[in-house]
Amino acid sequence: VDMNLSASSNPSETFYAEWQYLLPASDGELATLSFLQDVMDILLQYLVTNFDRSTKVIDFHYPNELLQEYNWDLADQPQTLEEILSNCRIALKYAIKTGHPRYFNQLSTGLDMVGLAADWLTSTANTNMFTYEIAPVFVLLEYVTLRKMREIIGWPGGAGDGIFSPGGAISNMYAMLIARFKMFPEVKEKGMAAIPRLVAFTSEHSHFSVKKGAAALGIGTDSVILIRCDDRGKMIPSDLERRIVEAKQKGFVPFLVSATAGTTVYGAFDPLIAIADICKKYKIWMHVDGAWGGGLLMSRKHKWKLNGVERANSVTWNPHKMMGVPLQCSALLVREEGLMQSCNQMHASYLFQQDKHYDLSYDTGDKALQCGRHVDVFKLWLMWRAKGTVGFEAHIDKCLELAEYLYNKIKNREGFELVIEGKPQHTNVCFWYVPPSLRNMEDNEERMNRLSKVAPVIKARMMEYGTTMVSYQPLGDKVNFFRMVISNPAAAHQDIDFLIEEIERLGQDL
Amino acid sequence: VDMNLSASSNPSETFYAEWQYLLPASDGELATLSFLQDVMDILLQYLVTNFDRSTKVIDFHYPNELLQEYNWDLADQPQTLEEILSNCRIALKYAIKTGHPRYFNQLSTGLDMVGLAADWLTSTANTNMFTYEIAPVFVLLEYVTLRKMREIIGWPGGAGDGIFSPGGAISNMYAMLIARFKMFPEVKEKGMAAIPRLVAFTSEHSHFSVKKGAAALGIGTDSVILIRCDDRGKMIPSDLERRIVEAKQKGFVPFLVSATAGTTVYGAFDPLIAIADICKKYKIWMHVDGAWGGGLLMSRKHKWKLNGVERANSVTWNPHKMMGVPLQCSALLVREEGLMQSCNQMHASYLFQQDKHYDLSYDTGDKALQCGRHVDVFKLWLMWRAKGTVGFEAHIDKCLELAEYLYNKIKNREGFELVIEGKPQHTNVCFWYVPPSLRNMEDNEERMNRLSKVAPVIKARMMEYGTTMVSYQPLGDKVNFFRMVISNPAAAHQDIDFLIEEIERLGQDL
Repeated sequence: VDMNLSASSNPSETFYAEWQYLLPASDGELATLSFLQDVMDILLQYLVTNFDRSTKVIDFHYPNELLQEYNWDLADQPQTLEEILSNCRIALKYAIKTGHPRYFNQLSTGLDMVGLAADWLTSTANTNMFTYEIAPVFVLLEYVTLRKMREIIGWPGGAGDGIFSPGGAISNMYAMLIARFKMFPEVKEKGMAAIPRLVAFTSEHSHFSVKKGAAALGIGTDSVILIRCDDRGKMIPSDLERRIVEAKQKGFVPFLVSATAGTTVYGAFDPLIAIADICKKYKIWMHVDGAWGGGLLMSRKHKWKLNGVERANSVTWNPHKMMGVPLQCSALLVREEGLMQSCNQMHASYLFQQDKHYDLSYDTGDKALQCGRHVDVFKLWLMWRAKGTVGFEAHIDKCLELAEYLYNKIKNREGFELVIEGKPQHTNVCFWYVPPSLRNMEDNEERMNRLSKVAPVIKARMMEYGTTMVSYQPLGDKVNFFRMVISNPAAAHQDIDFLIEEIERLGQDL
Repeated sequence: VDMNLSASSNPSETFYAEWQYLLPASDGELATLSFLQDVMDILLQYLVTNFDRSTKVIDFHYPNELLQEYNWDLADQPQTLEEILSNCRIALKYAIKTGHPRYFNQLSTGLDMVGLAADWLTSTANTNMFTYEIAPVFVLLEYVTLRKMREIIGWPGGAGDGIFSPGGAISNMYAMLIARFKMFPEVKEKGMAAIPRLVAFTSEHSHFSVKKGAAALGIGTDSVILIRCDDRGKMIPSDLERRIVEAKQKGFVPFLVSATAGTTVYGAFDPLIAIADICKKYKIWMHVDGAWGGGLLMSRKHKWKLNGVERANSVTWNPHKMMGVPLQCSALLVREEGLMQSCNQMHASYLFQQDKHYDLSYDTGDKALQCGRHVDVFKLWLMWRAKGTVGFEAHIDKCLELAEYLYNKIKNREGFELVIEGKPQHTNVCFWYVPPSLRNMEDNEERMNRLSKVAPVIKARMMEYGTTMVSYQPLGDKVNFFRMVISNPAAAHQDIDFLIEEIERLGQDL
């Protein structure tokens, strides 16, 4: 051990903190294996309970309770390794069991064992995607995996470009950035001041990241025009065309249509073929935000819902959602090769030396917005190897079948009211639970008022009991309703049954 | 097991792939423990060799060699778990040993055992930082940790705001975004078209992400004015003031000065106090990019180099660099509270319900550019608990001592020529190796030409032998030179000695 804590005010008081006995201490091997094995035991024990229906989804405590119950502070002096293990146990004790069969709260749920192993390996390799030189295997796997995803989208030979980014919002922002650059490359040097007023179009049900991206990119949220949707949440193409014409008449330049394949709340798929026709007619970049719905491309049964995606200029597709890959794993795929590079490169010669001894096309760092970039590909690649495309297909078909099962169970059940009619297109099923006290009320403002308070109370009770978790939200003129989504292959029919009965149990007195 | 692969063309051919025997399969516990223990054994074995000086830093192969040697393709059908384990072994076989005591290539090196354990736990928890509801402990730890970092910066009581972002480039982009919003809040809705022409200032030695951010944000790279540096790479305040006045005279609006604390190549610290005075005088947002140098705030011996940082409006500080936290871990700290939220929030009620049963100030998702956000805090927090502030201090003091050791060894050594005079301020030591054949040449163009080819050849040989790795680059009118940096606590004096002798061995015939 050649690093001692001499920082103490009295230099003679040097001592070894326990972490100093771990690697890279020269004799640290045994201490390290023992410590990491202890950590592993904690993790493995957690994993087993993670999937156990008899355990709570969450042991919920309010923020002030958790802050008071433990001392989370960062101190000058080190803790022992036993205390570190205890910190780990506590962190997991109060964590959400995101792999629990009854955790339905987010679009990303579940915990895949091969994906998890791959993420552990990624942490252990502890490198970034900057250059081939520092991540040879991961850079090649990103190349192989993005090409495969483009093939599945339907771009000939898997040609094109792409990147794994830190989430769907950033992937969508990349798309806007590239679309703007394609139309007005001078924006890179000259900024928005040198180009006409741009406008982008997306549906009123699209993800807020389109507006967030527009705000960041200096386009402004007012320049994101929200297109009307039909009752099922799909963009209405005639309204899109009307708004494009209107914007052009006002002197704006339409540069991007962001269609959604799988909206956040309804799980709706915009009509991509009709949108592609309009984009072609008006020469506008077509982006498909398939963060949530992209996974359906893996299913022969369901991929028709994205028909037309092959005509997009760019596609966001988050394997960490419907494909169950651990967080984070989001891809932006671009049809035209080289555009990302031209758009983002800064030619920093001190970072991307041009006289290296290998093929520099594998140095992908300069096409990213980031400098260092986390390795997100390995878990997707390893899961794909373990499951095969057919394994992802089975996962997706199963989750969609469960959503249909839920839909069929509640469509005529007393006390349940569907927000949208018809079979679910994705795994989203949106519904109100109407407690007995409201069932015979007239459909007036008071009923709406009272109904709006039902879901929040049921949700709070769910969390306090820790039995299950599902999301709710208002949307437009519709008051708070539950949005059920299923992306966890651990979920089964019994969990759908449980959810329905639990909502009834927790809401019947409201 | 309630999920079978019925995707085969002949439905009677259903079979179970091996991954299906793992959890969440109802009887998957034993198979899972056995598989994950096998993975762990591979990782632990790798860890031990990671720090072993007798092993190679890298088993380098050219991209086409690696592509040909193995089949990396993604297929329809699953692989066995034994094949998956073999994939893991191969991935590690060709990985860079980023914890190796002789890996000096990047600003982020080393592998901390407690940080690694924390990252494994983070993967296992598999959640994101969106809301308190889905990440109660991690959200609280982010709050505690960011406050502590602000205290260390010197903001009273640790007040202010902040976020962990996917890397320093994105943190710097956040700072630009917030600075622009602070001056012209209407930019969020109206875009750059509605506000005056902005200009930002940063030194000619600053990181390229300032320009990258300006390109993305619609400001344009031409509006990033590069301020001259002195011989040691520090921004010259009088040049900054001159350029601000000049820009104002031309009708531009200066909105941001990005000072650097620890430049990428020289490791220079801009004079923050003088810069703060100028920012105050002209009412410009002062950002400090301390991605690399921020770590020195943990050292009582070295923190004076950042004197004045407490006057900044925002600070980027990457614990994944000088503090040895596993990738990724980058923080953006903001002095004014609430600004990030106003700047980035989109009020998506379907994502951030306002009628939840706990204190909503812990739902941090809407102040981020991202929607889902990876949990980056836990590894920093757990390392801090294990090491204490004094442990980070010892780490940093040790790395800086090693840099000074290197400097002292080569400053008068035949064949070595320092790029900048004087003791290193950070761990960056920049130097040319001059092979015997060039030592007696006149300092003319031909010598420069030949010298420029020395570092790339030595680097290529290093990688082929796999003995060590160090970066090189040209800078301004200076041809390719080595940039040595030390952030790995595994490095010792013997590794510095080795590097010097290895460069001599590999370069003497050039």
